Amino acid sequence: MTQALNLVPFVSVEHMMKLVLRIGVEKFLIDLAGYIEADFGRWQHFDKSARVASHSDEGVIELMPASDGDLYGFKYVNGHPGNTKAGRQTVAAFGLLADVHNGYPLLLSEMTILTALRTAATSAMAAKYLAPKDAQTMAIIGNGAQSEFQAIAFGALLGIRKLRLYDIDASATRRCANNLAQKGFDITICASAEEAVMGAQIITTATADKQYATILNDNMVGAGVHLNAIGGDCPGKTELHRDILLRSSIFVEYSPQTRIEGEIQQLDANHAVTELWQVMSGAAPGRTKPEQITLFDSVGFAVEDFSALRYVRDQLAESHLYQDLDLLADPDEPRDLFGMLLRAGQAAALPA
Amino acid sequence: MTQALNLVPFVSVEHMMKLVLRIGVEKFLIDLAGYIEADFGRWQHFDKSARVASHSDEGVIELMPASDGDLYGFKYVNGHPGNTKAGRQTVAAFGLLADVHNGYPLLLSEMTILTALRTAATSAMAAKYLAPKDAQTMAIIGNGAQSEFQAIAFGALLGIRKLRLYDIDASATRRCANNLAQKGFDITICASAEEAVMGAQIITTATADKQYATILNDNMVGAGVHLNAIGGDCPGKTELHRDILLRSSIFVEYSPQTRIEGEIQQLDANHAVTELWQVMSGAAPGRTKPEQITLFDSVGFAVEDFSALRYVRDQLAESHLYQDLDLLADPDEPRDLFGMLLRAGQAAALPA
Repeated sequence: MTQALNLVPFVSVEHMMKLVLRIGVEKFLIDLAGYIEADFGRWQHFDKSARVASHSDEGVIELMPASDGDLYGFKYVNGHPGNTKAGRQTVAAFGLLADVHNGYPLLLSEMTILTALRTAATSAMAAKYLAPKDAQTMAIIGNGAQSEFQAIAFGALLGIRKLRLYDIDASATRRCANNLAQKGFDITICASAEEAVMGAQIITTATADKQYATILNDNMVGAGVHLNAIGGDCPGKTELHRDILLRSSIFVEYSPQTRIEGEIQQLDANHAVTELWQVMSGAAPGRTKPEQITLFDSVGFAVEDFSALRYVRDQLAESHLYQDLDLLADPDEPRDLFGMLLRAGQAAALPA
Repeated sequence: MTQALNLVPFVSVEHMMKLVLRIGVEKFLIDLAGYIEADFGRWQHFDKSARVASHSDEGVIELMPASDGDLYGFKYVNGHPGNTKAGRQTVAAFGLLADVHNGYPLLLSEMTILTALRTAATSAMAAKYLAPKDAQTMAIIGNGAQSEFQAIAFGALLGIRKLRLYDIDASATRRCANNLAQKGFDITICASAEEAVMGAQIITTATADKQYATILNDNMVGAGVHLNAIGGDCPGKTELHRDILLRSSIFVEYSPQTRIEGEIQQLDANHAVTELWQVMSGAAPGRTKPEQITLFDSVGFAVEDFSALRYVRDQLAESHLYQDLDLLADPDEPRDLFGMLLRAGQAAALPA
């Protein structure tokens, strides 16, 4: 898109919803997983760093930058478990894509919805490499904002048809089940986490308390299961009992960040883990035997957001689902920033 | 301001220009310097870190976060010295202020203009503590986008009335002089940096090459001068000859960042420097004798941007110079993000 230098395309929440609806959630997730997989496939090209977190008693605000040398992206995201009490999202986010060669923004976008989509797409992408091949049933423990996206991604990318849902808040489970009613799943509402995991080949945990919690105990995880641990992403916040980790083959996005935030903060700093891109490139094995327990210790990494912004940007020219923001000063002569102000004042007959 | 949870006030470039013009540049700079001084005065309250930089051959993209425990701010800013050739700004920026207690954004704002203003306000604030009391004349070497803002800030806060301007590009100097024509300065256009510094009690350097440069040589800086070194802010980018630094009392914003980016990257890592907040709080002396050379080795720090965003936000209720952005997803029930999408689809008769 060619456009004035001062303008940056902005995808609002409303535009994002229209974009997802127009493309279709399933196709959006499949396409997005393709972008994420492509970017994980060129992992070494990225300038990567653990996200920059500002912690408070109530939660965390994070900046997540990544660059491939041509594009630069970052996401602003919060995590405040107490927010839902006041009618706010636990996680809200927006992000930006920019041109590395001149530093100018190319896209500003809502990312609350987009984060749920990219998290689900990443989970399903990882499970393609790690879950048992014949998996048909997934347990979802924690039926909040992420849950339907996870279900649909696993349906679209892995053919999961049976869901077993559990949340400490039964109304969340009912809502999740209702929201998925037209999606063709065979859904079982469960009264406990123990019940939810019965017969599931994949267990997704997506809870949000900011504390060490034990959503899964060791005796709940049988041989051959794939664990998709989505919740957490804070120092001091985990979901799984440590003994489960010791029995699992652990896969992570970017180990320097996961060691701080993930389930593996419960383990020694040198406990062996495999980065997902290694599996995708063939440098390391994924699942090697049926009885193996695989754990995707997901905390969310900046490259996934980069991929998501890149995907959204590639839809703009066709979708026109954006508005132009007057975000960047663009004087007639680039070094004459003050002159731009001066002339604006003259035009309005005000002194600069 | 009370408003819907999904909306974030956005101050565009046009709104920022109107705000500055309505308040008046001089008053804006004086008021903004007051906010910066207040925040430097409670320095220990801030969660501070060196900015997060992504470097490329052409320039740098940086994220600059800061938090005082109630508000969180960050700025996105690039620095690309080659940009002006293509009609772009060397430095373009925008920023965000958020509520630490729930992580929700409170303000999104252009910061290209605002950065020039906060840089000038910070320079003048520092000079109040460091420059000779009787200073009337300032040399400005580098007459680009920052120059007029620096001149006006020093006029408004220190009573500087005489300017001596020099730039390797004579057209930049002419433009700067023309832009300042109505501001009451006695302006001398100089043919060299050597000529510009003659008789100046304050020397401001504001150049932008990404390389070790020597804008000032040792013999150009006489006793009693205050140096306001604005340019630079990259590893490998300096403006002053090292010998000048060895004769100067050096003042910085936040030493961990300045040691990486500032003039003092030319010195040993343990060379004594004073942080500006120490002078303002009385914990360390500023200028102690007339013949002393003081150097404000300014690189720009996140707290200044925080102060600037805080100042702009405090003007919004009265000015109404903003638009509301649909930046945050706001489902009726906070955990029902997918349901929001589903209902948007039902409203448009599209499958989610």
